[in-house]
Amino acid sequence: MSEIKRVGVAHRWCAAASFGRIAFIGGHTARETRGLTVTEQTAEVLRLLDQTLAEIGCTKADILGAQIILSNMSMAAEMNEVWDAWVAPGHPPARACVGAELGKGLAVEITATAAVRNQEASLDGLV
Amino acid sequence: MSEIKRVGVAHRWCAAASFGRIAFIGGHTARETRGLTVTEQTAEVLRLLDQTLAEIGCTKADILGAQIILSNMSMAAEMNEVWDAWVAPGHPPARACVGAELGKGLAVEITATAAVRNQEASLDGLV
Amino acid sequence: MSEIKRVGVAHRWCAAASFGRIAFIGGHTARETRGLTVTEQTAEVLRLLDQTLAEIGCTKADILGAQIILSNMSMAAEMNEVWDAWVAPGHPPARACVGAELGKGLAVEITATAAVRNQEASLDGLV
Repeated sequence: MSEIKRVGVAHRWCAAASFGRIAFIGGHTARETRGLTVTEQTAEVLRLLDQTLAEIGCTKADILGAQIILSNMSMAAEMNEVWDAWVAPGHPPARACVGAELGKGLAVEITATAAVRNQEASLDGLV
Repeated sequence: MSEIKRVGVAHRWCAAASFGRIAFIGGHTARETRGLTVTEQTAEVLRLLDQTLAEIGCTKADILGAQIILSNMSMAAEMNEVWDAWVAPGHPPARACVGAELGKGLAVEITATAAVRNQEASLDGLV
Repeated sequence: MSEIKRVGVAHRWCAAASFGRIAFIGGHTARETRGLTVTEQTAEVLRLLDQTLAEIGCTKADILGAQIILSNMSMAAEMNEVWDAWVAPGHPPARACVGAELGKGLAVEITATAAVRNQEASLDGLV
């Protein structure tokens, strides 16, 4: 039976939790670019997301679903420009984008689900 | 090992991505009824959702979870009237409904997760 | 082949739907503490979430992802105080927290996904 694997574990949350062949990735937000433009924050958030994906054995081409929260939908075009340059060609996720209130100074938050396709999991006869 | 199957693929997103027996369906919003009432938009969004579900081999009875975003929660009663007439009796999804900012002219956006129960996947010894 | 199991089934929604080894838990909101403080509502919502998890054979240590919606992000510190005391030490979920409009009198809504690790499902050779 598969076990839950968590990476980036703090008391309050983890960065991602995988179970068998599915991973749930928590809300990623800017650290160094907090308070800066949505363009800069989106670039950092996607870099952080790439790092978390790598820690659970995934790449951006394995993302199944993504939810993007913008602090204001007027920033959608700028966010999308960074997203479009980042997304794995031919492997874009099912995506939703809405505007909602984020923590102070944050312009964008991204959560995702991903397929885990490493060998260890495949031995489980799983997904 | 299962592969990721994506339908409705554009550069930026896909309509749905399935992996093994689980599918993640992106935010569906009105096309023809954009700018019209929430009642009309909800009806169109649910028709589009039915189409996407069909493309991945699912029906509305296979929906596990759904998230409904309204541009204003005061529209909840009107949205629910259309939803209640649409939902598969006895097979309603785990649902959440919140109010958030959507793209211009959009009253409602729906995302979902669904169980994929077609034969091909069952041969994987999967879910 | 696994079947979908739904608990807390109403016409419009269910409290949670599990399929194989994955469960999707709908938005949980206050019932008795609606209109009261976010501290009181969070405590009740987490109790209700514990109940739903138990009904599908899970505990809070099995939560993979959680989304917390606050009606106002200024309530985050109070919500987190209750959350921190509740979360299973060493087993926190991938989490996202945003501010959005909720139903009248509601301060917090929590949705989640969880790993189902009971025996029956493991016999499926699943996750």
